[in-house]
Amino acid sequence: MKILVINCGSSSLKYQLIDMDDESVVAKGLCERIGIEGSKLTHQVPGKDKYIVEQAMPDHKVAIGLVLDALQDAEHGVVKSTDEIAAVGHRVLHAGTKYCESIVVNEDVKKVIRECFDLGPLHNPANLMGIEACEAVMPGKANVAVWDTAFGMSMPEKAYLYAIPHEYYEKYSIRRYGFHGTSHMFVSGEAIKFGNLDPENAKVIVCHLGNGASVSASIGGKCVDTSMGLTPLEGLIMGTRSGDIDPAVCQFICNKEGIDINEMLNILNKKSGVLGMSGGISSDFRDIEKAKEEGNHLADVALQAFVYRVAKYIGAYTAAMNGVDAIAFTAGVGENDKVSRKAICDYLGYLGVKIDDEANNVRGERRVISAADSKVKVMLIPTNEELAIARETLRLTK
Amino acid sequence: MKILVINCGSSSLKYQLIDMDDESVVAKGLCERIGIEGSKLTHQVPGKDKYIVEQAMPDHKVAIGLVLDALQDAEHGVVKSTDEIAAVGHRVLHAGTKYCESIVVNEDVKKVIRECFDLGPLHNPANLMGIEACEAVMPGKANVAVWDTAFGMSMPEKAYLYAIPHEYYEKYSIRRYGFHGTSHMFVSGEAIKFGNLDPENAKVIVCHLGNGASVSASIGGKCVDTSMGLTPLEGLIMGTRSGDIDPAVCQFICNKEGIDINEMLNILNKKSGVLGMSGGISSDFRDIEKAKEEGNHLADVALQAFVYRVAKYIGAYTAAMNGVDAIAFTAGVGENDKVSRKAICDYLGYLGVKIDDEANNVRGERRVISAADSKVKVMLIPTNEELAIARETLRLTK
Repeated sequence: MKILVINCGSSSLKYQLIDMDDESVVAKGLCERIGIEGSKLTHQVPGKDKYIVEQAMPDHKVAIGLVLDALQDAEHGVVKSTDEIAAVGHRVLHAGTKYCESIVVNEDVKKVIRECFDLGPLHNPANLMGIEACEAVMPGKANVAVWDTAFGMSMPEKAYLYAIPHEYYEKYSIRRYGFHGTSHMFVSGEAIKFGNLDPENAKVIVCHLGNGASVSASIGGKCVDTSMGLTPLEGLIMGTRSGDIDPAVCQFICNKEGIDINEMLNILNKKSGVLGMSGGISSDFRDIEKAKEEGNHLADVALQAFVYRVAKYIGAYTAAMNGVDAIAFTAGVGENDKVSRKAICDYLGYLGVKIDDEANNVRGERRVISAADSKVKVMLIPTNEELAIARETLRLTK
Repeated sequence: MKILVINCGSSSLKYQLIDMDDESVVAKGLCERIGIEGSKLTHQVPGKDKYIVEQAMPDHKVAIGLVLDALQDAEHGVVKSTDEIAAVGHRVLHAGTKYCESIVVNEDVKKVIRECFDLGPLHNPANLMGIEACEAVMPGKANVAVWDTAFGMSMPEKAYLYAIPHEYYEKYSIRRYGFHGTSHMFVSGEAIKFGNLDPENAKVIVCHLGNGASVSASIGGKCVDTSMGLTPLEGLIMGTRSGDIDPAVCQFICNKEGIDINEMLNILNKKSGVLGMSGGISSDFRDIEKAKEEGNHLADVALQAFVYRVAKYIGAYTAAMNGVDAIAFTAGVGENDKVSRKAICDYLGYLGVKIDDEANNVRGERRVISAADSKVKVMLIPTNEELAIARETLRLTK
């Protein structure tokens, strides 16, 4: 049984076809520049050459059509007909407070996606286009919405409510939602299995450290707190995002520079993080590390600050749960940067955390990286949002 | 030897005359409505009735004159002449990045206070007025500036730099400063003495919990991190201030409500915190507790969220220091609210924190409130900013 997983951006569409019998990727690809001149589909079957189709894609419906053509192509295809695709799983950013788990799409679900356009202005419209394109091109095929916000829905009020006038929650649903939810759900679940932890009570902190970065705390796989908030801006220092700042910084800069709050937020989202701290070197942690090695002081401080913020969140979430059983690192930096993992864990000696330097000398591989006598299990668990979406889709449609 | 301590607001002036031989308060008082119709001086000598002077105070110079009159008054006075006052200590809010400790005021110091008007727009102008009034009324008497930001100056860059474009630090000195610095300095120092801790290496977390609230982490009395930032808005949930929020909340509300960033910051500073979370009940924690006891759900959540945020900061700062030797509670809520202290410490069992409920049944008294076998010493240390200012003033002028 095969599941097609789709992640739509406003001008892009990523897909994976996953065989659920062995959870292997049968084919994957990317449509770029949808609705823009120079559209391109890159299709890849593992072990084979890339198949590139340069053809106009005026909208997501055409793009999906080309994806299905590629999947059924005589030479580059992997299925005889779309009948072999059991269902389609869609990454959808935002369900507001309406859904706390994945759901088979119907008109009500599409209405909720539409109602949450203001909470996810860049993603929700694109996600909806992807769903409607699939409905048009594969009528009758079940589509499942897997929400990036669902994981955070189990947080208690003390964690998700901001200390602002309560009317803003009632009027506009302003609260902490958390993002990377599918990744946090997947990794915390896998950490419990891989670490042989108590599935009901294990206290797990997941550090999803990539260009976007967030930390979650969960008990028995249920989220109790997470660092991203109303938007993905809050929390850790990221590639280009500031994470936590005094909100008064916005006022101060707006008034000094004569800009408005929308321009300010653009700066905080796109020109801040390690890019901004380093004086503009790069948003890529590898470039920052290189600059640090070459003696750049701001690059050094940016990396120190990044690591320090992660360590503080781990400390905070350990207090939130009154303890921690396991810490799992995932995503680009979390899976590949042993130096950052080590530096973060160096703050945590008081918890009995001990890293095994040899075990930590690894990239992108599921592994326990703490020493045998570490009081907290520290793991590297590669994330796999597509597989998590496929599993949810299978669960709801089989 | 007596030191006069002065804390000027824009229309108020608080003072204490302290005898440094035994650190006792000889007299204290308050000038209200300076520059406004209905000015009033309330002067009090411990153990005696209040002495109230209702007289016009067009400016701080007149106010200081009346204070000196009251101190020398035949019936209500405590000194024969101002010669008995060795020096004057002033609370000054903001020294920007210029001074990291108290200093005897000269023209350069006044210039710095002026240069920092934009960083402390409400306080620095008033603080300067107080200094200049003393210079005019008591020429030749030493004035000492004790900065609320000085304690935070020992933070490392990883703690004080925001992850925003570095140019804003260079152009506008935007960074974490921290406030309540005199209180944190005083309480962390007293905690080390009272707890018999290592004066060089003790890791101390001070929770200054009042209507304004902040947490600091210090090693050997030197601040390494603190929760207030560029302004006193950041960090904990306070009486009317939001503390930490996703900065994107500002943008969202500004756009929805059609207000600008200055109006938004006014809401975050004056209408948020437990006042806002509770749906407008009160900014006074005692009122919120009463409402909670009467079954008000939002009041309950506001208190839970306040306690939870403090616990998370303690957890974060324990990670920042890789351990903690002592936690000290101070200020209105910290000194008087045993329920909150207990609720905060209930999160910290994983650190070996154990509260002695009997010892914790106390208000405003210096005391160890943890059990004998607690791995972290938890204390109640009443703050005394005036005494701290007097000590600094004596140290710099004797």
